This record gives sequence, structure tokens and C-alpha cells, in this order.
Amino acid sequence: MSDLNPSLNPRDIAVDVHPAGGPAPEVIDSTVPVIHIDDLAARRGDGIFETLMVRGGRVRNLDLHRDRFVRGASLLDLPAPDVDRWLQATDTALAQWDAVGGGEASLRWMYSRGRESTGEVTGWVTVTAEAPSVLRQREQGVRVMTAHRGFSLSISDDSPWALVGAKTLSYAMNMAALRHAASQGLDDVIFIGDDDRVLEGPTSTVVAVTGRTLSTPSQQAGVLPGTTQAAMFALARSRGWETVQRPLTVADLRAADGVWLVSSVRIHARVTELDGVTLPRPDVAAEVEALAVEAATA
Amino acid sequence: MSDLNPSLNPRDIAVDVHPAGGPAPEVIDSTVPVIHIDDLAARRGDGIFETLMVRGGRVRNLDLHRDRFVRGASLLDLPAPDVDRWLQATDTALAQWDAVGGGEASLRWMYSRGRESTGEVTGWVTVTAEAPSVLRQREQGVRVMTAHRGFSLSISDDSPWALVGAKTLSYAMNMAALRHAASQGLDDVIFIGDDDRVLEGPTSTVVAVTGRTLSTPSQQAGVLPGTTQAAMFALARSRGWETVQRPLTVADLRAADGVWLVSSVRIHARVTELDGVTLPRPDVAAEVEALAVEAATA
Repeated sequence: MSDLNPSLNPRDIAVDVHPAGGPAPEVIDSTVPVIHIDDLAARRGDGIFETLMVRGGRVRNLDLHRDRFVRGASLLDLPAPDVDRWLQATDTALAQWDAVGGGEASLRWMYSRGRESTGEVTGWVTVTAEAPSVLRQREQGVRVMTAHRGFSLSISDDSPWALVGAKTLSYAMNMAALRHAASQGLDDVIFIGDDDRVLEGPTSTVVAVTGRTLSTPSQQAGVLPGTTQAAMFALARSRGWETVQRPLTVADLRAADGVWLVSSVRIHARVTELDGVTLPRPDVAAEVEALAVEAATA
Repeated sequence: MSDLNPSLNPRDIAVDVHPAGGPAPEVIDSTVPVIHIDDLAARRGDGIFETLMVRGGRVRNLDLHRDRFVRGASLLDLPAPDVDRWLQATDTALAQWDAVGGGEASLRWMYSRGRESTGEVTGWVTVTAEAPSVLRQREQGVRVMTAHRGFSLSISDDSPWALVGAKTLSYAMNMAALRHAASQGLDDVIFIGDDDRVLEGPTSTVVAVTGRTLSTPSQQAGVLPGTTQAAMFALARSRGWETVQRPLTVADLRAADGVWLVSSVRIHARVTELDGVTLPRPDVAAEVEALAVEAATA
């Protein structure tokens, strides 16, 4: 959500990864331009990204993000990222962030197909302070509208270009959905597929809790595999919860004890209102949210 | 297609439009970075673009591109572009292009939601020489695969964020489809919807010709309104052709006298092979292609 609530922050950090090789990752001045006009990130949204939580001076759930990043690069036919180089860039960015005061933040990997004129991939690591809305929504929850996404995706050998499972830079539609919710005085959106199945939020994964069971929509429905959801489900299982990926309807969400949107930086945002219907805070909420925090900050 | 066939061209021109106001549009050095790391064009593919043909020192079908650009900005809730400013930037870019030798080229408008840290829109006009593949495909046609897009879009008040009709910077999926075709030894793709209706190419509009009738898929199917198709159909009607927007199937394409992919810079590329089946060049081809050229260069 931080992207909808930008605030000028001169502390923002940027590191040039030089993903095609050559110089070591280096801190660059984020107050001056760093991307060429022919970079396909800007021209075509042609690349991938990950957003990692920074807390206590380090990034959390690094392995899950790294794995999705590598998978995404493969789905987009980008050169396999040199993981050591990206981790080095991450360390460099974290050290610089710490040097200017540190604190909770979003660290982003951006990996672009690169410049049309050179054919070489480009990439950056950035660190940005958390927007105030992140903490507010984590503490107070979110008012949400469901909405037909306007498209359905399915995992299919027939349409490899659908890029299901890749977190691409082509997020214009997700951003438009969030703006639409804001224009209705709401905080977030849950997308619904053509078959009326629950999909995902524009920047989050849907988790429903009923009794001692955590449910999330099947990835076959064409949703991005959530790193926070995966970490949370693994932790929950180790604590005796049941976890399940299954088709979910809006009625299932309404009938659940509670519904959360989970993501790396905001961690959890309980759905307090769904299409105008209040969802009361269940007794289990504190336990669920503690699970989410523990999983997201692993 | 030029984007799939990049070539180093030191003549590339870039003009900073300053779309939020302030300084007049100015030529900038395209060999150094010009986009900030927090620009939402690069972070989210959040913006729109138009690609205009440059021939004889001027851009063609300016009014059609301008209208779609203004409409796209509205669909994305971007500030309405100051059209005079964009035209001034275009003239500046054309003058500079002419100064370095001119020739046929692509001129692109890029309009971004801008920097997260400032909240101000950003925008550029660029000019790039035509890729050799453009002329080759115009002259020799293209071998094409049909492919389910993996998603369907429908014009619906219910999903305004689907951004149907906006030419957004979020083109990762379109680029992936073209790469997939290239990996099969083919030149281009025609997307098919869930209902098996013909949609569009990743960067072109489909036009089928039967007798003296030009057909193109209905825009209700969720295709981008094509400027070249619109210009071509208007010209064709004035010459006594019938023109129709209607649902088209792959069988309709196979049964047509000829099928073309039309777009601003490539103008026309006749489909010489569709899913492995040769489509012979019809007698009417020269006339159709002359119409396309005349319309595209108006």
C-alpha cells in the first residue's frame, strides 16, 4: 500500500545491481535520474520485482523472495539472476539504510529486461521508509470491496505468456483497482474471478480463518504465490493449525471467523468490512496476527 | 515489433515533456539516465504510451493518437495531458531528429504517473529509427500463431480498473507472447479470447478482407481501438468498401481472402501462415496494402 501513500523521503536508498555483470553493486544517488529512457522497465513494464520487509536491519523471508524472484525471471525468459550479486546489493543497501538512521522499511528488487539499445538487463535495489498507512492498516484493518478482476488467468501450458506466478512490473491494473477502492472511501480490493471464485488482493494474498483452519485460494486459480502466506501457513502447521489451499467464494469469506490480507511489509490487514458488511473481530484475531507477524519477520 | 529487434542507434532522440508544467519541453541527452528510480513507469508500468509513425519529417494520424492518449489518461485517472505541451515536445523531437539526419522512425509519447516521492507526473517523447524487421514484415508478411490470451477483458462498468481501451505501459504479457512466437520460429501472435473469438495482436489490430469488405473484431471484446485500423476503415469506406466490426473466429480468418495485422509504424503485415496453414496472397492484396499505407500516413 505504501505506493499509494508516497511521502517525500530524502533518505531513500538506491543501489545499482549491474545484473549483467561488471562492476560490483554500488550505492547511487537516488535524487538524480538513474534509468535510461530506453529501459524496458519504463517502456513496457517488462521485468520483475520483489518487496521485502526490513526490520531490525535485515530483510525477512529472504529465501522465499529469492525463490519467487528466480522463478519469475525464468517465466519471463530473463537471464537467471546472479543471486549472490543481488544479495550483495541487498547488503549494500541495508548498510546504507542503517547509516542514515535505519528503521522499518521496504526493500525492493527491480530486475528489468534492460535497455533496448544495449540488450543488457538492468536492476536496482531500493529501500524506502514504510508509509504511515502500513502501520495504520496493520493495526486497524481495512475496508474492502470485492471486484471482478476483469480477467481470469489460468495456469496452462497453452498460454505461457500469461506469466502466472511472476511478479511483473506491469502492475497498472492492480494500481487502478486500488485507486478505484480509494475513490469509494475504501482501503483495498479482493479480486474475484469469472467463476466467482476469490482470487487475491492487488498487492496481497487472501487468508480466511475458520476454527483452527487457515484457507487461501488455490494457486491454480491464477494468483501470485504469496511469500507471507507461505511462511504463515508453514508456521501455523508447526503450531497445530490446519492449512488448506482451496477454491473460496465470497460467501466463504463472509462465513469465516475472520479474513486477512497478508503481504510482506504490511504483514496483515484484517478485513473489517467486506462489501459494506462489517466483519467483527474474532477472538482468534490476536493469535492469527501474532502468527502472521512471526512468519513475516522470520 | 521494433522493440524485439533493438539495435544500437546513437541518433535516438529524447525530449523531456515536463507534463506537470514548468519548463518548456527540452531535448535531453538520451545516452545518460533520465528517469528517477521512484518513477512509477518503471516501478509499476503505471502510465500510457502512443507510438506514432514519422515519415517525411512529420508524425502521421496525429489526431487519432492524441484522442486515444487523452482517453487513456482519463481511464488511468492521470491528469488530463496538456495537449499543446505534448505537441510542442513532438515538434521539438522532430526538429532534432531532422537535424541528425531524419528518415522513417517511431516517435513515442510516454506519460507516467510520475515519481512516488513528488507525486508529479512525468513524460517523454522519444524518436527511434525503424528496426529492419519493420520493413521486412511489411513487405514479406508474417507467420503467425493463434493463442489463447490467458485472460479475457470485457468493457464493463463493473471493472473500470481493467483499463480496457488504454494503451498502458504494462505490456509484459504482450512482450512474452511475442517472445513465445519467436521461440517457435514465428513472427507474431493473434490472441484468442476465452469464447474462441479473435481479439488482437500484442502490438497490432487484426483486419480480415473478404470480397469488398474489411472486418475487424468488435471492441466490446476487449481490444485496444487501433488508430491504423480506424484510419484505414474510414478511408476504405470513402472508396466504396464495406467495413464492419464484428465477432470473428479463427475459422473466419481462414475463410477470408486475406488477413493483415495493422499498426502505426509497421503499417501492414499480411498473415502468410496461420497456425501452420499457408494463406496465399490474394489478388486484392496490393489494393488493401495501398489503402493501409495511405491511411497510416495521413
